[in-house]
Amino acid sequence: MSRDWFVEEYPHHAGLMLEVRRRLYDVKSPYQRIEIMETVAFGRLLALDGCVMLTECDEHVYHEMLAHPALCAHPAPERVLVIGGGDGGTVREVVRHAAVREVHLVEIDRMVVEASRTYLPTVSGGLADPRVTVRYADGFDHLEGHPAAYDVILVDSIDPVGESAKLFTSPFYERVQHALRPGGLAVFETESPLYHGDVLRRVTRSLKALFRHVATYLAAVPTYPSGLWSFTFVSQAIDPLTITPRFEGGLPEGLKYFTPSLYHAAFVLPRFVEDLVQP
Amino acid sequence: MSRDWFVEEYPHHAGLMLEVRRRLYDVKSPYQRIEIMETVAFGRLLALDGCVMLTECDEHVYHEMLAHPALCAHPAPERVLVIGGGDGGTVREVVRHAAVREVHLVEIDRMVVEASRTYLPTVSGGLADPRVTVRYADGFDHLEGHPAAYDVILVDSIDPVGESAKLFTSPFYERVQHALRPGGLAVFETESPLYHGDVLRRVTRSLKALFRHVATYLAAVPTYPSGLWSFTFVSQAIDPLTITPRFEGGLPEGLKYFTPSLYHAAFVLPRFVEDLVQP
Repeated sequence: MSRDWFVEEYPHHAGLMLEVRRRLYDVKSPYQRIEIMETVAFGRLLALDGCVMLTECDEHVYHEMLAHPALCAHPAPERVLVIGGGDGGTVREVVRHAAVREVHLVEIDRMVVEASRTYLPTVSGGLADPRVTVRYADGFDHLEGHPAAYDVILVDSIDPVGESAKLFTSPFYERVQHALRPGGLAVFETESPLYHGDVLRRVTRSLKALFRHVATYLAAVPTYPSGLWSFTFVSQAIDPLTITPRFEGGLPEGLKYFTPSLYHAAFVLPRFVEDLVQP
Repeated sequence: MSRDWFVEEYPHHAGLMLEVRRRLYDVKSPYQRIEIMETVAFGRLLALDGCVMLTECDEHVYHEMLAHPALCAHPAPERVLVIGGGDGGTVREVVRHAAVREVHLVEIDRMVVEASRTYLPTVSGGLADPRVTVRYADGFDHLEGHPAAYDVILVDSIDPVGESAKLFTSPFYERVQHALRPGGLAVFETESPLYHGDVLRRVTRSLKALFRHVATYLAAVPTYPSGLWSFTFVSQAIDPLTITPRFEGGLPEGLKYFTPSLYHAAFVLPRFVEDLVQP
């Protein structure tokens, strides 16, 4: 019997192959193609327009590392906004924190949320938390209507193409700044420093023009292009490199990647990444 | 025109694809199949028995991270042994250190060294350093003949199959211990903690039975399985986590990955790796 492979071809003439046991879902939403399949070794896989968004096997790395550094760096993260991330994985990590009182998830594509609720219950489960409101809207527009509204904003975007491209522009970053409460902070996923170093460089420059503190950190996500992923932390008030993060009462239970020591270590960059983000 | 892809299928039903521009070399040595090809975006690629050993684009990560933590942790690394690593990349990093007086490279397969000298000059160039002696021998046997001979031993093995399997056993580790001078240290490449977590767990246990200090550190090598690679540092005398590494006079020029801050950060492990290496 022939084998079925999901193949994601990256820029730079490289690609990832994951063997598929069963294809579960494949639809065109108004925004994108949404596929969910059962892989042989990585659990279920969610792909948008042919790109891996998550596998059950390693999604915790990306979601823990997008959420916990921010939530541990803010002294009282009560109101949290997640832009994108319709699969619910980031929200699942946010609601692990008892300090959080209200979470808004703003996702443009209702069908991503519905597919995740049906096929990825361990990822989307946090969406049922009573503190969470899901809004089907454009993140760009949502920010404009919410001045000084959030302690923490997490930008869980996809690659900067199509609808998502405007989430990688200065006008978007200005709206994020505008939507933060005093003392607030935001974290953006900023792609692979190896395959999308130009994106990281450009985004860092744009953010430095707006925020007093801008710092990049890294995590290892094996099913993302190159396996190395960057996140960028911004704030007017909080310098993530010098604060003592809030771990009192310990970290939430059940984390598989993030640790208090890793908070600091993740901001220590290999030389080639330092070179990308230096002015 | 159809495209030519090099495909490495990993265990766990996953694989890496790299597009090939031109195939340069493909021979069966007495030990293994040796292939060298020009990829479209990663420079030249060396594969042994179908597994990526290096690409010119990212080999510096692995070679810097195998060599420099050890050489910076030892106060006077005069005599250095590299086992395996016939491509010469590890030796290139070793000879960047002025303190080093003598380097032995012990590689079982002469044809790997010859192919690297011909097709990978930027990798093999360090082999021409007058401090370097190349010996075509079994690393296992070589160690037996060299008691208390080396300040630093770097084990640049390939995956634990075939000839290389015995480099992942306690009898081999005992010989490494026996070949170290007092105050010496060794670093072993110990595979992907994601794809070969069982190897890392087993190796760590075996090493802890022999050495007082055993510590794992990580680096991101995009063309190795999972993109996350582990190294294990061992010594009777030197605790890599508490020493102040020797960076006086600065680091050697030309490094692209390793930095003094990264020395410490690389030993900070994600929780799932901590769990693998805890007793």
